[in-house]
Amino acid sequence: MELQWTADDVFAFLRREFPQALGRGMQYEVLALEPEALDMRLEVDDSHLRPGGTISGPTMMELVDCAIYVLLLAHHMEEARLAVTTNLAISFLRKPQPGPLVAKVRLIKHGRTLSVARTDIVSETDGRLVASSEATYFMGGS
Amino acid sequence: MELQWTADDVFAFLRREFPQALGRGMQYEVLALEPEALDMRLEVDDSHLRPGGTISGPTMMELVDCAIYVLLLAHHMEEARLAVTTNLAISFLRKPQPGPLVAKVRLIKHGRTLSVARTDIVSETDGRLVASSEATYFMGGS
Amino acid sequence: MELQWTADDVFAFLRREFPQALGRGMQYEVLALEPEALDMRLEVDDSHLRPGGTISGPTMMELVDCAIYVLLLAHHMEEARLAVTTNLAISFLRKPQPGPLVAKVRLIKHGRTLSVARTDIVSETDGRLVASSEATYFMGGS
Amino acid sequence: MELQWTADDVFAFLRREFPQALGRGMQYEVLALEPEALDMRLEVDDSHLRPGGTISGPTMMELVDCAIYVLLLAHHMEEARLAVTTNLAISFLRKPQPGPLVAKVRLIKHGRTLSVARTDIVSETDGRLVASSEATYFMGGS
Repeated sequence: MELQWTADDVFAFLRREFPQALGRGMQYEVLALEPEALDMRLEVDDSHLRPGGTISGPTMMELVDCAIYVLLLAHHMEEARLAVTTNLAISFLRKPQPGPLVAKVRLIKHGRTLSVARTDIVSETDGRLVASSEATYFMGGS
Repeated sequence: MELQWTADDVFAFLRREFPQALGRGMQYEVLALEPEALDMRLEVDDSHLRPGGTISGPTMMELVDCAIYVLLLAHHMEEARLAVTTNLAISFLRKPQPGPLVAKVRLIKHGRTLSVARTDIVSETDGRLVASSEATYFMGGS
Repeated sequence: MELQWTADDVFAFLRREFPQALGRGMQYEVLALEPEALDMRLEVDDSHLRPGGTISGPTMMELVDCAIYVLLLAHHMEEARLAVTTNLAISFLRKPQPGPLVAKVRLIKHGRTLSVARTDIVSETDGRLVASSEATYFMGGS
Repeated sequence: MELQWTADDVFAFLRREFPQALGRGMQYEVLALEPEALDMRLEVDDSHLRPGGTISGPTMMELVDCAIYVLLLAHHMEEARLAVTTNLAISFLRKPQPGPLVAKVRLIKHGRTLSVARTDIVSETDGRLVASSEATYFMGGS
């Protein structure tokens, strides 16, 4: 399937219609966007940290959820508003360094009604895989 | 296993040592705390909503993560700081009403090294189960 | 939603149309069948055991999958043939005793297109919860 | 980490000590074995099929579980007997053709106490990804 929107189109849409999806102050940047693949970077700040300087689990879960949503919007435009996450699983593999994270989303299934996204979260600081997620999306309301 | 701390002890600890765990402005209230069981309420505000008035997935994931952490702290006090989430899965069952949520955590395994928590998220408004989660915690650093 | 078939109807259907679903020699017995709830027992034999006398993971996964399928058939009759598992997660909590297992399935969502089943596996020998599973079913082929 | 056993060593051990791990008649062949990576092929027969000629979910779950166990044995020899699966999640993406399957296991975390394996199941017939799994193993008994 082809992309319908650029990253700029997606963020313009989100800022206009749906600012909360961008998180409470989370700073996202799209590094690469291709059909069924997106790399998105999060600039981590103090609010995302845990004692010892590591990054919180909810920060990573929010990054995954947002990155997948951006990719679905780039493919399906406003129609992706109807997409609902049916489930999301995440494994936390290593404590990330307290620096930027990159979410690498791949749609391993992209159907009319169901899509499945696999996401690797990599620490930009040392290039290590810190978390792995798989999530299912249902297009069509309920 | 017995509880070592009250809910007030846990929140005093979190406010002092670890304020980010309480979320960026999330308003939690412990409704019930027993050995291996916790009910915790989240007062939802506009920042948690999605278009159509429903509550965002990351808000529910953060509620689950925090509720389990509160229960582990009540059991293990400061030692629970060493607990790391190894994985978390959540199924989103129904779009919740835009009102308070209650997370009901039960430790279905509570071992020396591994614990497993099952969490139901219920909408306080209509009493319906809106999400179901299971998460594994590893006590002991790495 | 109401049940359409008894357990006997379901097993007659499976033996006639779909004997492999009953496993290669697995001995199942329905203990209780109500709307959206089923308890099904597996008589464990040597082929299901691992060294040390414990029961294998695949045996438990097959029990979960079969029990949910029996419940969906009881509700939807032949139409449930179109149901596909979209994902299944299972946590192994304790090594079960080498005796019969009971799978307790509850449909925590039962929609037209998506259903979610939570299953507890209990060891009949000591009554302990040995595994916990959640699985999503998509009705309609795709 | 280095491999300690060849695939032949692993299968000799399994046939001697633990024949049930090889499944009730399942025909496995190791195609490639490297540190932290294994490709294992399953020759599918009629007992694995569902109506319509597709391969059953439990067959794929058993393939994943066995493939990971073979890889852990190749790394840790008899010590891997102490490994217990703590959880396993699998997404079924497409109905596989009724032919051989290949499980491609990668250890995305390989720690002293916890290991996480990601497994792709590919249909040999058409090369398509049919299922994706992630599983966590705990080394050390309980």
